[in-house]
Amino acid sequence: MGPGPSLVAPSVYAALARPTIGHLDPEFVRMMEEVKVMLRAVFQTTNPLTFPISGTGSAGMEFCCANLIEPGDEVIIGVNGVFGTRMVDVAERCGAKVTRVDAPWGQIIEPAQIREALTRVPRPKFIAIVHAETSTGALTPPVEIARLAREAGALFVLDAVTSLGGCPVEIDAWGVDAVYSGTQKCLSCPPGLSPVSLSPRALEVAARRQTKVQSWYLDVNLLSSYWGQERVYHHTAPINMNYALHEALRGVLIEGLEARFRRHEQCHQALRAGLAELGLEIVSQAGHQLWQLNAVGVPAGLDEAALRKRLLTEFGIEVGAGLGPLKGRIIRVGLMGETARPEHVARFLAALRVCLGHA
Amino acid sequence: MGPGPSLVAPSVYAALARPTIGHLDPEFVRMMEEVKVMLRAVFQTTNPLTFPISGTGSAGMEFCCANLIEPGDEVIIGVNGVFGTRMVDVAERCGAKVTRVDAPWGQIIEPAQIREALTRVPRPKFIAIVHAETSTGALTPPVEIARLAREAGALFVLDAVTSLGGCPVEIDAWGVDAVYSGTQKCLSCPPGLSPVSLSPRALEVAARRQTKVQSWYLDVNLLSSYWGQERVYHHTAPINMNYALHEALRGVLIEGLEARFRRHEQCHQALRAGLAELGLEIVSQAGHQLWQLNAVGVPAGLDEAALRKRLLTEFGIEVGAGLGPLKGRIIRVGLMGETARPEHVARFLAALRVCLGHA
Repeated sequence: MGPGPSLVAPSVYAALARPTIGHLDPEFVRMMEEVKVMLRAVFQTTNPLTFPISGTGSAGMEFCCANLIEPGDEVIIGVNGVFGTRMVDVAERCGAKVTRVDAPWGQIIEPAQIREALTRVPRPKFIAIVHAETSTGALTPPVEIARLAREAGALFVLDAVTSLGGCPVEIDAWGVDAVYSGTQKCLSCPPGLSPVSLSPRALEVAARRQTKVQSWYLDVNLLSSYWGQERVYHHTAPINMNYALHEALRGVLIEGLEARFRRHEQCHQALRAGLAELGLEIVSQAGHQLWQLNAVGVPAGLDEAALRKRLLTEFGIEVGAGLGPLKGRIIRVGLMGETARPEHVARFLAALRVCLGHA
Repeated sequence: MGPGPSLVAPSVYAALARPTIGHLDPEFVRMMEEVKVMLRAVFQTTNPLTFPISGTGSAGMEFCCANLIEPGDEVIIGVNGVFGTRMVDVAERCGAKVTRVDAPWGQIIEPAQIREALTRVPRPKFIAIVHAETSTGALTPPVEIARLAREAGALFVLDAVTSLGGCPVEIDAWGVDAVYSGTQKCLSCPPGLSPVSLSPRALEVAARRQTKVQSWYLDVNLLSSYWGQERVYHHTAPINMNYALHEALRGVLIEGLEARFRRHEQCHQALRAGLAELGLEIVSQAGHQLWQLNAVGVPAGLDEAALRKRLLTEFGIEVGAGLGPLKGRIIRVGLMGETARPEHVARFLAALRVCLGHA
């Protein structure tokens, strides 16, 4: 019940342990196609270039930055937690001049802030936000910001690491040009791959670069030949992780996106109600709280590290610590994918009740 | 029996499917320590910074280049196959001025060639070679080239993707400063991680950089805080792949490096003898042929693509195609890790006999 990895279904473990075959084997190539089709359904996109990067979510972030940024490009990045902060660092390493749009940790990035930044940087290469800030539990609405990007002739980049599979993520309807996610959050697959999708517009930007992409490993112009029709050998894909992702995506689609989102929402509401009975609350911005990651305020005077340790050792429940300015002030309770079940919420609340001396 | 992924032991599959726990969980941290200790034993090094990169072998190559190269640095790279060619591309993307030392595919890089290159580029940042060229089956002896690097004040970088676990790789004795490998070759683990090791000298070069490492994901200065004593969160490690690597390394060390190398050598010799009976031979440079990857010359007039297809569909045996100038002229027969067993050699030879009409 931490900020990920989340619980994994037995069928996904079984898939993970299937015999390893070659990365150019016709059977594996067939499976790659199915992974692409299922990822498109989960991302709600028709983007042909939708596939998993052979690295974790942070590699997906670097994939988007490295392919879209050329040295000297201006970009606007919303920063309201660890992952926005990280994206600034990644983008700068790719040679970007970054304009930060900051919000207090736990709050969302407001469209008005982006509009203001655009008065200073009217033609950025892209505008990026973190959809679901795993470090704070805030869910920034992307639609209006995507519209501002489009009007400015900029690409719109979305970090969907923690949102994908747990709440609506609609790449085409929202006008997202580049998105990356991770397997170990609401897709409930072990960590190791980063599903990404680029719009034809973003792909064109990557194809028309004046300079080579600084990362060979993440160069979309090479990767698209391996994941596309040509099947040109690039690197050896993590075969078994792809089996697991295939099975996890199958589970998501069999359940249905709407039903899955409702399950996450209901678990969040059950948690919130139980916390209220204990006099606790979720501290991220009201009206914009994530279902899948709950920033629970720790009462003054309570040692949160001791609380987390007791939950882990005595009750077998992992929760996350606060980070940055929220360190010591919150615990992060994940309700992602398979973890988002009423029985887990109940078990957590019962354990918390004991730890707080309410039992 | 292709160029990797190789066969995987049942115990490694079982480890892969163990329950996913958190990347900062004390149990996982304990396992990370054991992975580091076992990797040091397999690399035959005392380098503290020895750990698996969360990507495949190509990410390990990029890790070495990105951390050691600053824009404008001169490097010397031996090119005698696909992976030397790739390293030139990766190094150039990191901003290096690359001096290529070319040998025909299938041949080794000779120390005299490196010596000649040093007359033109007397103070390179590093000299790099591919120890075992998976694309050609040639094993370049590294000791003399390492000595030349040391004398020139350069670092020595070794691609040990296909050599590690299948033939001697002695990082400390040879004076290797940076080495990367892959899990899916002679370690017989599924693909997805890249074991690396940096000498204190290489680490110092990375720490004293004037510029930030261009890749955030692969920045050793950040990674060493996660894999070191501080355990600072960097990215979510591929938990289950680390379980698998842990179990695969345990298997290597229980067998013993010497016994494992002998097993690879004996299988190679059995293959070579069987091929000779069929009038076939291994075409890479005599005296420098890899045990674990055998470049078998295809008789003129034989359709090698049809041969590979028949081996796969009729006999369930995967072998690799030739690449670049060797395309159509060789098949690549892998005898790596668990695949290097006499029964596999016999089964392959029997199938080949049928395919060639000798049966």
